[in-house]
Amino acid sequence: MSQNQIFRKLEKIRALATDVDGVLTNGAVYYGPEGERLKRFYIRDGMGFERLRNAGYKVVVITGENSELVHRRMEKLLVEHYFPGAKDKYSLLVNWCREQRLDPSELAYLGDDVNDISAMQMCGFKACPSDAFHQIRTLVDYVCHRPGGLGAFREVAELMLAHGPFRL
Amino acid sequence: MSQNQIFRKLEKIRALATDVDGVLTNGAVYYGPEGERLKRFYIRDGMGFERLRNAGYKVVVITGENSELVHRRMEKLLVEHYFPGAKDKYSLLVNWCREQRLDPSELAYLGDDVNDISAMQMCGFKACPSDAFHQIRTLVDYVCHRPGGLGAFREVAELMLAHGPFRL
Amino acid sequence: MSQNQIFRKLEKIRALATDVDGVLTNGAVYYGPEGERLKRFYIRDGMGFERLRNAGYKVVVITGENSELVHRRMEKLLVEHYFPGAKDKYSLLVNWCREQRLDPSELAYLGDDVNDISAMQMCGFKACPSDAFHQIRTLVDYVCHRPGGLGAFREVAELMLAHGPFRL
Amino acid sequence: MSQNQIFRKLEKIRALATDVDGVLTNGAVYYGPEGERLKRFYIRDGMGFERLRNAGYKVVVITGENSELVHRRMEKLLVEHYFPGAKDKYSLLVNWCREQRLDPSELAYLGDDVNDISAMQMCGFKACPSDAFHQIRTLVDYVCHRPGGLGAFREVAELMLAHGPFRL
Repeated sequence: MSQNQIFRKLEKIRALATDVDGVLTNGAVYYGPEGERLKRFYIRDGMGFERLRNAGYKVVVITGENSELVHRRMEKLLVEHYFPGAKDKYSLLVNWCREQRLDPSELAYLGDDVNDISAMQMCGFKACPSDAFHQIRTLVDYVCHRPGGLGAFREVAELMLAHGPFRL
Repeated sequence: MSQNQIFRKLEKIRALATDVDGVLTNGAVYYGPEGERLKRFYIRDGMGFERLRNAGYKVVVITGENSELVHRRMEKLLVEHYFPGAKDKYSLLVNWCREQRLDPSELAYLGDDVNDISAMQMCGFKACPSDAFHQIRTLVDYVCHRPGGLGAFREVAELMLAHGPFRL
Repeated sequence: MSQNQIFRKLEKIRALATDVDGVLTNGAVYYGPEGERLKRFYIRDGMGFERLRNAGYKVVVITGENSELVHRRMEKLLVEHYFPGAKDKYSLLVNWCREQRLDPSELAYLGDDVNDISAMQMCGFKACPSDAFHQIRTLVDYVCHRPGGLGAFREVAELMLAHGPFRL
Repeated sequence: MSQNQIFRKLEKIRALATDVDGVLTNGAVYYGPEGERLKRFYIRDGMGFERLRNAGYKVVVITGENSELVHRRMEKLLVEHYFPGAKDKYSLLVNWCREQRLDPSELAYLGDDVNDISAMQMCGFKACPSDAFHQIRTLVDYVCHRPGGLGAFREVAELMLAHGPFRL
């Protein structure tokens, strides 16, 4: 897809939906004797959340996992639309768009693995981290230069801020 | 080994045996004042376990270490055949194959260091992460593009799913 | 900027101001069920703090975050001038320079993201880690070879020690 | 230094002295609200300790830091000669050699930073991780292909096992 086509798609985007593991994190999950213990987030992605919110974009976070520690990160990032334990991301996002009076063509999606495909395919702008699962990389409009948990989210956020309807 | 030879070997594979440290993890072990504290796993490898199981493959996890935290990860991944503290991986795997009525030629093996060699050599398909110990890389049928703890397991899983007898 | 211009700027530098996240760390923040749990620092950067102090340089650490764990690291590094929760880094640094009887042209600044820009621009020598946000990389006098949390701080420290007014 | 010169030096080596941070670890130190919390070691380096010991080599670990968590790792690795809090590594190593009836020319040294220089320079074989501080890289007989905490130790161990007086 040419840069111009990408910019044209971004002109309509008013919200960003993102997965957690492999997108906001590097896909790593640290186990201790008590089980899942830590996940690694990225401070510059956090600034992306702040900048999108300040500009007027909505951000929705959807994940198949349900992890207390991700709740804590979402609180820190002031994320209002957080859906853990989402087994059917597609239906969930259809409903969310209806509630928010958004058309899926106004929604960008950032995902990295096969369980993102059906939700991703209805969205107006599809992106993935540089290290996404290969099947995803062939489906998206935009493959980030940055990998998951190391700036992929911020990269999409800055693209939206530079070319979308809301600017800082 | 040519791609065709690899595909032909995979046609017979019905189970995957894997090491833990350096394969399901990046080989890192995090110590705190209380001793071994954390190991790092990879969420996309977890999806590989789920997809292999759904397709009908058996997965067996064999490691020389005996770490409570690995137990927790195995529980999360619903691994039925987990053998910690395995000092003689070869004999253990011979017995396991007999119990499961599998011929070693139907078993794939994913390992990264010298203590995997004897068990690995009897198996029908031998693979290692991209960052395996050099002696292992010269022995295997397939060197993954991905390193340990960053998708090597998923890569072998997807090869099996694409070319093996059981498919999703 | 030519190497000679860089050396000439360094001849006047008597103090170094640095951000924390993405500079002294790799930008990662590890969350556990209790919230923010860990950040990752670099032992060779620690030696940079020691060597700058021994040579007679002042180091000031300024960050928008306010994290107990960063306090602990600052204590270990014997940092006297530590300002957490700094929302307006520019004003804070203006005041600090006045107190220390330093002209901003005698101050080097090491930062990585947009909230460093205004403070950075008044300083006599501006540097960023190799993986800084792209907008910062275009503003600075010197882009480090090393990324944040992996030696960027040490690299600037050694430049100052080799070309500044105070030498070991 | 030519490969032959390296092999000739290794023929006399009967013991290996190593630093901890940046050599057995990647130089990272993870802080939590309680202070220093974790360091990251590498499982394949652990196998290097085992293989050197089995072959008859002595290993001595010397570090300027004094960290409870490093003690735990040394216990796991069955290290007998561990010297934490070593401010003068040179004198310490001179004494240790005398006690062990070793000539420094029979000792290999693996270090990564300026505080290793004086101790390193008396040793018969000097090596550093691929990511050592640049000043060290110019001093050593051998720069590892692997960085600290990711196999540098194992690499030197295998060199000794392949070319030294004791072999497995």
